[in-house]
Amino acid sequence: MKDNTRRGTRIAHIGIAVRALGDSLPFYRDVLGLPSVPLEDADGAAIVGLAAGDALVELLEPATPDSPVGRFVERRGPGIHHICFVVDDLDAALDRCRSSGIRLIDEAPRMGAEGKRIAFLHPASTGGVLVELTED
Amino acid sequence: MKDNTRRGTRIAHIGIAVRALGDSLPFYRDVLGLPSVPLEDADGAAIVGLAAGDALVELLEPATPDSPVGRFVERRGPGIHHICFVVDDLDAALDRCRSSGIRLIDEAPRMGAEGKRIAFLHPASTGGVLVELTED
Repeated sequence: MKDNTRRGTRIAHIGIAVRALGDSLPFYRDVLGLPSVPLEDADGAAIVGLAAGDALVELLEPATPDSPVGRFVERRGPGIHHICFVVDDLDAALDRCRSSGIRLIDEAPRMGAEGKRIAFLHPASTGGVLVELTED
Repeated sequence: MKDNTRRGTRIAHIGIAVRALGDSLPFYRDVLGLPSVPLEDADGAAIVGLAAGDALVELLEPATPDSPVGRFVERRGPGIHHICFVVDDLDAALDRCRSSGIRLIDEAPRMGAEGKRIAFLHPASTGGVLVELTED
């Protein structure tokens, strides 16, 4: 019997660090035509979501220079910050990370925006990619 | 009358620069469980596609250090390289870019892998994000 709650891993969103939401929003909303989606602030950043297929583009404007996104912008400039995947079972995915030697930033899932459980993986063990995992 | 060929802009793929496909593939395929998809090489890179919802993760291994992806890895290390959006009308989207002051790397669409028309936008005018546009 097929379990329809198991959809397989997919992209939830791409997090893009920006200096100011107002500078970047016109490109995504007006030039690319992505509809905006209201989202809560999280991790010291103001966020605008934009629907792009079954995934979101999330523009992240740091509230302070010493927030995680603020430090990223200081160090590397604005640009793609992280990629978030939805997995069917977050705890099982983190177990697979541990047994594959993937370093976790969040050893246990924590509560992210919109009441979702999330965990970040360290880019040092994922080929330079900051990966966030979440589940529905 | 609804035009069902117009689906709206969505994410086609996320291009991730890797030093070696074999180093990064186990994370995406075995830990995240993304099914791999055969893809042609393009722009001096060997590519492995991985299906993640209605988008792909594309792992890009540079064939030579002086290819576009090779230069990126030399300069910044491996990591997320670009984001590709599918638009309904590529020529119209490029016109909107021009009239919004977005700098184009490809002034006219060129043929990419899989016989698709593509064009890259310059990250200097998109908040540090290398954006590729394509159409179905």
